[in-house]
Amino acid sequence: MWQQVWWLLFGLETNSKLNKQPPCCRFASKAAPKTQVEFEYDGPSMKTEVPGPRSKELAKQLGEMQNVGAINFFCNYEESRGNYLVDVDGNRMLDVYTQISSIPIVHRSPLSLLSAFVNRPALGILPPENFPEKLAESLLSVSPSGMSRAQTMACGSCSNENAFKSMFIWYRNKERGHNNPSEEDIRSCMINQSPGCPNLSILSFMGGFHGRTMGCLATTHSKAIHKLDVPSFDWPIAPFPKLKYPLEEFTRENAQEEARCLEEVEDLIVQWRQKGRPVAGIIIEPIQAEGGDNHASPDFFRKLRNIAHKHGCAFHVDEVQTGCGATGKFWAHEHWGMEDPADIVSFSKKMLTGGFYHKDEFQPYRIFNTWMGDPSKNLLLAEVLNVIRRENLLEEVSRSGKALLQGLYQLQAQYPNLLSSARGVGTFCAVDIRDEATRNSILIKARDKGVLLGGCGDRSIRFRPALVFKEYHVHIFLNVFNDVLAEYN
Amino acid sequence: MWQQVWWLLFGLETNSKLNKQPPCCRFASKAAPKTQVEFEYDGPSMKTEVPGPRSKELAKQLGEMQNVGAINFFCNYEESRGNYLVDVDGNRMLDVYTQISSIPIVHRSPLSLLSAFVNRPALGILPPENFPEKLAESLLSVSPSGMSRAQTMACGSCSNENAFKSMFIWYRNKERGHNNPSEEDIRSCMINQSPGCPNLSILSFMGGFHGRTMGCLATTHSKAIHKLDVPSFDWPIAPFPKLKYPLEEFTRENAQEEARCLEEVEDLIVQWRQKGRPVAGIIIEPIQAEGGDNHASPDFFRKLRNIAHKHGCAFHVDEVQTGCGATGKFWAHEHWGMEDPADIVSFSKKMLTGGFYHKDEFQPYRIFNTWMGDPSKNLLLAEVLNVIRRENLLEEVSRSGKALLQGLYQLQAQYPNLLSSARGVGTFCAVDIRDEATRNSILIKARDKGVLLGGCGDRSIRFRPALVFKEYHVHIFLNVFNDVLAEYN
Repeated sequence: MWQQVWWLLFGLETNSKLNKQPPCCRFASKAAPKTQVEFEYDGPSMKTEVPGPRSKELAKQLGEMQNVGAINFFCNYEESRGNYLVDVDGNRMLDVYTQISSIPIVHRSPLSLLSAFVNRPALGILPPENFPEKLAESLLSVSPSGMSRAQTMACGSCSNENAFKSMFIWYRNKERGHNNPSEEDIRSCMINQSPGCPNLSILSFMGGFHGRTMGCLATTHSKAIHKLDVPSFDWPIAPFPKLKYPLEEFTRENAQEEARCLEEVEDLIVQWRQKGRPVAGIIIEPIQAEGGDNHASPDFFRKLRNIAHKHGCAFHVDEVQTGCGATGKFWAHEHWGMEDPADIVSFSKKMLTGGFYHKDEFQPYRIFNTWMGDPSKNLLLAEVLNVIRRENLLEEVSRSGKALLQGLYQLQAQYPNLLSSARGVGTFCAVDIRDEATRNSILIKARDKGVLLGGCGDRSIRFRPALVFKEYHVHIFLNVFNDVLAEYN
Repeated sequence: MWQQVWWLLFGLETNSKLNKQPPCCRFASKAAPKTQVEFEYDGPSMKTEVPGPRSKELAKQLGEMQNVGAINFFCNYEESRGNYLVDVDGNRMLDVYTQISSIPIVHRSPLSLLSAFVNRPALGILPPENFPEKLAESLLSVSPSGMSRAQTMACGSCSNENAFKSMFIWYRNKERGHNNPSEEDIRSCMINQSPGCPNLSILSFMGGFHGRTMGCLATTHSKAIHKLDVPSFDWPIAPFPKLKYPLEEFTRENAQEEARCLEEVEDLIVQWRQKGRPVAGIIIEPIQAEGGDNHASPDFFRKLRNIAHKHGCAFHVDEVQTGCGATGKFWAHEHWGMEDPADIVSFSKKMLTGGFYHKDEFQPYRIFNTWMGDPSKNLLLAEVLNVIRRENLLEEVSRSGKALLQGLYQLQAQYPNLLSSARGVGTFCAVDIRDEATRNSILIKARDKGVLLGGCGDRSIRFRPALVFKEYHVHIFLNVFNDVLAEYN
């Protein structure tokens, strides 16, 4: 099959339906001889103005879901061939720009269903016809509460970087009171200076992980190896609550710890405003994953959300690791029970594409790059979401997660010198091991017995099974884990 | 076919070859009832130590091409099913980590040839078996001179961001004289402070474009709209030569202008070192694309390369837009005729995947993220490169480019009040229009006649056809362009 696909995609066969007459010559003194028979059209052919009615209709549809300011027109990649790009209104254009120079060979897609994989359109300017429909079926069908717009990106770090930019732009527009930058703004930004490149900051939490590009990295504080030797920004870092588990047994102490952290957040916002680097946004994970599976209560997040409101900071929930069902709800922030949980929710990993949801006022008109994600990932995501619904996988996750956590509690009671602080929501579980060396050796012993686990924080093991991990698998895992732990007694 | 693919990928059919016996129960008081017949294995099965001999062999192969420090083992994704990941030595493991939590549903890939598209492995830790081979066939088969290592990334911005990090790490290791950070380095980096997060800089050029994430954006200086409202770094910005075209007619003046810019580069390196923000690397495009198709001579780049050597700065050539054949050579920097053109060459766009080549000493052990690119793009790239070779497309580009530039010279002579500074290498051509408004209206008129063009800089039109744009297409284009220009006379 593969060979056939490539043959169709790249073969230079003749196609008798396509006209091969040389174009009439209006400028050049001679038409170049056609030395090769080509699998394409014989010239441009225009039927409507551009964008035509169908493009306009699709732009209206897509405009409900994301910013369409940069879109030229929608494309029919199935009909596009060789050097000719065909739009959804049947206009056929000679392409001397090739998606901002990103197409190496040609538009050529005889196998329509595979065309999303082999064409990599510049989504921000020339999306395919089915893009609004696929976006609605995939990302928009699982929008967080209060958000009906999504911007796709190629990876998790790009998602957070671009979300930060949206927050900075939103904050500066709010400060200015309008969207029109001054001459001084425009001049100074070209040389990296304020006010055009303002001294704004993002408040993050110690132990948080938000990616490894330079903006993201300034908000990542989980391991030194991620940050070492890379220049950074002077941005505020708040303490994340260090809670005792199980949470329900330590409610009073944990509430005190959370209150201490929230107070510190407010202090930092005031301090950074005073030192001329106002906090434009706050970024936080619903469960600090890379940093050691650190939980906080719904009450903590509700209060933090209010602090963001009170100080005019955007509130960005990073669901790159927690999103897409692992906690038994589609988004981990749904456990907070809020109608207005965030201004921005970023995602990646299980979602197969990176990106972020945002409220209307975070119009990312200036959020742009060549690819803006990859439409093939939307197709896959739509199907993944169908399976999640059809198989009731969120219920499955809740059921398996309960069995997993109960099993960890039992093992913790059985091996009190080895295990502590078993915790989790859904199958998003973790347990602490007595020290880092033992944790690392347990990971290897489990692998040698056929179970793949991951570490996080200094001495935790994190469980991150797929959404089809059932009670049956939980027990296979617990059997192996018990065997491993027994070797340490 | 699509439906069949999905059926195979996501259907939960029974498979009589797979054993469904419940596992024996060593820990749990009861084995969970199996409520669903599953398309997977019945438990782990280990055959060798992990990594086994085949994994080790592949790691050795891949180690010749990129850093393998984080790789756990190589996977056989064809044999992996449901919750079980199978490695290349036949070990079958229950997966409770799922590629750093990035697999939503399952490993399941009955159609081996499509598995690269639907599985999205975490390449840095669990690459597929054919990854070394595909990397050798694709990226490594077109390595720039002096470079035999490549790191893939998801997009152009991530490529440059991670290349910057490689340069910073390299520079700090050089300063330290060894690779072992101090306690002070480790402590300070966690809170974004120096010396752990050092005050190093990247020198860039006015008019350059290197992407839009926050590190990249600090080196991008093409349009204010890209940079406005985003905090930045105080990094040095050198002037890029403003040359007169055709280059061969103004050699003396152009050489003076280039000498002025080179002198400024050296001054900035010294100044930034003096103010405590040493220049770790220099980034430059072989032709400034987004900034207006600004050329410089091979002599300029050779001298700039020497300045980087002299001052101990890394030299990073950004070929995101110029790479992959558009100039008639595979890499634009090949026109400089140097054996040692750069320390780092980044790419994206036409290459279908982002990434960067680097010299051995820029070992990116700490360059890591979940996806590290997308192996399906390597498969596509390998095929694209085969077509480029088989069809002699680089020769085709040189031939078409010559015809295109000759045509632009003729039109420029014909419309001297409208066109100026026609220039280009291969089909990577551009021409200036008398003012921005006219340029924009020409772009629209050409589109209405069925030719897609792009602008760059303030008033240039850039030509970026695909590699199969032949002389025949050049003449179609010139005819239409002539018709458009005639409307302005």
